[in-house]
Amino acid sequence: MTGVTDEPVPGPGGVCPPARTGQDAHVLLGHGAGGRLSAELLDSLVLPALGVPAGGPMEDAATLPTADSLVMTTDGFVVSPLVFPGGDIGDLAVHGTINDLAMRGAEPLALTVALIVEEGLPLGELATVLASLGAAAHAAGVPVIAGDTKVVGRGQADRLFITTTGVGRRIPGLAPSAAAAGSGDAVLLSGPIGAHGTAVLSTREGLGFVTDIVSDTRPLHRLVRLLSPLGDRVHALRDPTRGGLAAALNEIARDSRVQVEIDEASLPVPDQVAAACGLLGLDPLQVANEGCLVAFVAADAADEALRLMRSLPEGADAVRVGRVTDGPPGRVVLNTLVGALRIVDLPLGEQLPRIC
Amino acid sequence: MTGVTDEPVPGPGGVCPPARTGQDAHVLLGHGAGGRLSAELLDSLVLPALGVPAGGPMEDAATLPTADSLVMTTDGFVVSPLVFPGGDIGDLAVHGTINDLAMRGAEPLALTVALIVEEGLPLGELATVLASLGAAAHAAGVPVIAGDTKVVGRGQADRLFITTTGVGRRIPGLAPSAAAAGSGDAVLLSGPIGAHGTAVLSTREGLGFVTDIVSDTRPLHRLVRLLSPLGDRVHALRDPTRGGLAAALNEIARDSRVQVEIDEASLPVPDQVAAACGLLGLDPLQVANEGCLVAFVAADAADEALRLMRSLPEGADAVRVGRVTDGPPGRVVLNTLVGALRIVDLPLGEQLPRIC
Repeated sequence: MTGVTDEPVPGPGGVCPPARTGQDAHVLLGHGAGGRLSAELLDSLVLPALGVPAGGPMEDAATLPTADSLVMTTDGFVVSPLVFPGGDIGDLAVHGTINDLAMRGAEPLALTVALIVEEGLPLGELATVLASLGAAAHAAGVPVIAGDTKVVGRGQADRLFITTTGVGRRIPGLAPSAAAAGSGDAVLLSGPIGAHGTAVLSTREGLGFVTDIVSDTRPLHRLVRLLSPLGDRVHALRDPTRGGLAAALNEIARDSRVQVEIDEASLPVPDQVAAACGLLGLDPLQVANEGCLVAFVAADAADEALRLMRSLPEGADAVRVGRVTDGPPGRVVLNTLVGALRIVDLPLGEQLPRIC
Repeated sequence: MTGVTDEPVPGPGGVCPPARTGQDAHVLLGHGAGGRLSAELLDSLVLPALGVPAGGPMEDAATLPTADSLVMTTDGFVVSPLVFPGGDIGDLAVHGTINDLAMRGAEPLALTVALIVEEGLPLGELATVLASLGAAAHAAGVPVIAGDTKVVGRGQADRLFITTTGVGRRIPGLAPSAAAAGSGDAVLLSGPIGAHGTAVLSTREGLGFVTDIVSDTRPLHRLVRLLSPLGDRVHALRDPTRGGLAAALNEIARDSRVQVEIDEASLPVPDQVAAACGLLGLDPLQVANEGCLVAFVAADAADEALRLMRSLPEGADAVRVGRVTDGPPGRVVLNTLVGALRIVDLPLGEQLPRIC
């Protein structure tokens, strides 16, 4: 990932997007989509402003400056609609933050919740999603220990935004990092992809034909706990949320300076998801997930990791989807069904706004 | 503070506000104002949904379930305008979270930052407030260790909201709590009140006559560090933000089950603030502050606490404003300039929306 230039650059299809930076530039929807625009905003504006050197590995959670192996993560949730098949903004916010901690090999210890509410939101709807949030935290065994509520006027927010922050403790022996994938690693996926994004989109757009797709939102910390006996043979973990599997693999390939190769034939895309994506022009590789993880493990640990994951419901469909191969660092390639190699790009910007 | 009933209750002036709860109730601006409506929403809806028993002491930061004396706090910032005399949403977010940790007697260790940005916000404005945020964190010696950026469409948020979360470590020997004020305590204030709220309002309303008032936004952790030699004689600390000094004193009176008496003659309200409040019909006791704290200390520690606070610029104007007296628990009374006793209520709802 390089910094932003002031020149428009051709997109994947050779089309020049409008100028993305410079004095007159504005925030675009795609700046929040988890793709290349997000990375550019982070590298060119956010990190410099905060005094953080750009270009370092971007992890799902950061280490706290304490002696206690603690990690911390934060995430804003702006999903629309608030309730969708399989979940709502409340449990999504809990799962998303628990999963970011888990991807650093941490047991979640506690959460905080900050609400920004639009004036006029029915109290009943607020109660529903907060009950869902509380139930998800309880089910995961993670207490909500602090919170804050702000209300803004009508038209100054879209109903409800939730920011959750989590603290967790690293499981001894487990130290996965987006920068730690290595030569020969097996790439495993804990379950099918594409359900969350298509479920939210189907609700938002009132598309009856895909209403039987439900979000995969769920916590993944038990799956990671189960992998802990594999210790340092677990190299990298990531939950492919915004930007989908394509973004997750590209980030690991970039930060670990390796080439990642995945096999289209092995990718678990449910038929309904594939059909919906086909109709809507979406790439299932770029659709957000909220209940699966991608694991880079040492080749000799792959079978054991799959066996462990499959012993839990959330990992029942775990499969091997690829491997780290020799090739240009930072590149992700797909072995297509017809035997060709295709480059899997980091999505440029927004294919599905407000998906989480 | 009792729970919400379904019956409208007379407000302070005997006027019945519209029904605030029940099946058809909606979120009101006042639910986010830090007054009685906020407390009702918390007790009747938020805490039950999260499975937290209502009625316990509400602190500025919560203890983490670790062995490390860690505390954690979160706060959403929705101030409008983003930039105001004396600060902006960036440094305000850092100071607010550092101060919530400090009010629990903690040294801030790390912050996270979650941005919700409206599509179309000029990148230059985003860069300005993030630079201010970064500079404030640097000046306070507290690193920003994790972050998140979401973008929502035009009209779905008002420019920029920032949620900051902080983790801190309790200073050994210091364990202030809103529930720990006791009989005979002296009530100290580290500086003048009313500047933040009137500064923001003057900018928002384009009121030229008060443009020389600047927000008092600043970090207070060094002031608390300086008080640490007083140990357990520091009973309660609170920064009077939303709802102002009136809310802070009422919360401590309620959680500590004591009566608090303050002297109007001793209250440090700058002339310009008093003039602005008079013209605008605001009560300086209810106006938000972002750079002062109220401390309940044992009577025999009051002089030493004042001496210590006055040794730092942020406490140069520290004064004694009152004491804990015998009387109905949970009540705050003001000795007025004319010698009468007036009850200081928790503000009902919103006098200044989006002030922090």
